[in-house]
Amino acid sequence: MSKALVILSGGQDSTTCAAIACQQFDEVCAITFDYGQRHSIEIESAKDVGFRLGIKQHEFIDIPHILVGSSPLISSTRLGQYDSAEKLPTGVEPTFVYGRNLLFLILAANRAAAWGVTDIFTGLSGEDFGGYPDCRDVFVEAMQLALNQGFYGTPNGFTIHTPLMYLTKASSVKLAVDVLGDRFNEIFSLTHTCYAGVKGGCGKCHACILRDRGFTEAGIKDPIWSFRV
Amino acid sequence: MSKALVILSGGQDSTTCAAIACQQFDEVCAITFDYGQRHSIEIESAKDVGFRLGIKQHEFIDIPHILVGSSPLISSTRLGQYDSAEKLPTGVEPTFVYGRNLLFLILAANRAAAWGVTDIFTGLSGEDFGGYPDCRDVFVEAMQLALNQGFYGTPNGFTIHTPLMYLTKASSVKLAVDVLGDRFNEIFSLTHTCYAGVKGGCGKCHACILRDRGFTEAGIKDPIWSFRV
Repeated sequence: MSKALVILSGGQDSTTCAAIACQQFDEVCAITFDYGQRHSIEIESAKDVGFRLGIKQHEFIDIPHILVGSSPLISSTRLGQYDSAEKLPTGVEPTFVYGRNLLFLILAANRAAAWGVTDIFTGLSGEDFGGYPDCRDVFVEAMQLALNQGFYGTPNGFTIHTPLMYLTKASSVKLAVDVLGDRFNEIFSLTHTCYAGVKGGCGKCHACILRDRGFTEAGIKDPIWSFRV
Repeated sequence: MSKALVILSGGQDSTTCAAIACQQFDEVCAITFDYGQRHSIEIESAKDVGFRLGIKQHEFIDIPHILVGSSPLISSTRLGQYDSAEKLPTGVEPTFVYGRNLLFLILAANRAAAWGVTDIFTGLSGEDFGGYPDCRDVFVEAMQLALNQGFYGTPNGFTIHTPLMYLTKASSVKLAVDVLGDRFNEIFSLTHTCYAGVKGGCGKCHACILRDRGFTEAGIKDPIWSFRV
């Protein structure tokens, strides 16, 4: 029986990844991280999405205050607000937390090793992710090698699947519709992306701006818009 | 002013590394991890060693229950006892914690980035370290690349220094004597290596066996032997 592990944040990308993993593997387990982010609504989303996708083994890992930095996601720094995608700053987005995705991948590999799983899915995408260096393919490749050398002493072992790596947000929305079919609205209404922790999205933060643009460009109505005031 | 960060466990290898870093850099800061290991005496050793070496910025990072596994270092599995170095099992030692050194290096890089440091020292040694795959040079190289790609988006940035990588325990003892000079006995009497958490060393665990053999082969008396009953 084939088995995969997915890093499930409850956002649109990790939810799409989890759905893809469920298609490709007999059994999928999930982990979700609570690293002191402002929006605990994300944790609830992950729980609901995992349940609806039929994921039975789902661990929530509490990692408080392990990473330091000035990102507004883990500190009191003010969160940026933007009018449109064109107004987003270039370069590395201020929400970047040094080492966050590296830490997530190590913990995923630690649980995968404990559970006898070698296929790890993550929704990382290098296309439109605010300039985060740890969302790019070249990073994932380097990390996969470091994990395999560190865990197994060979270049092989874990495979990190990043099915959204080269997709625009619009393409990944279309992919989610393809994979989820008539469950798309039900599942995606449970997802949460907004950095400000607003149900349905604030529509002004970096994450909302990109999600909104993706759905608009794909010509698909985002089910979370119905919650927006 | 040049500045380096050292991962200081309070053991003989990280203490030697810290001493080397203090020789080569104007200022050295340190981090020590408490990851639920059995021997909290290690934490006290790190504190004492850091103080005596003149390290002013020293952070103790508590990371409870973040890694799972069956290693006796973090679980109730029975710790192996051995009569001599010849009796040590081959292959990966049962004290191996999947992902431990990867996690340590990420947290070191996170603090280094926050403190404006790019030179990181660790006492990892591939020579006689019980078959841990994450103590080998090829792993450190892969990890350095993953850190730089993940933090800075380029192959360069952090340099991970592993001055003990290709030294036998005997050679690293001689190196410590060279570097510390007449402070060797004072500083090394504060170090702790024993997995069983026995002050002065139980003399029977994997770590004690290797430390004892190193000192014996180097023809140097280990100052902690005076504590042994």
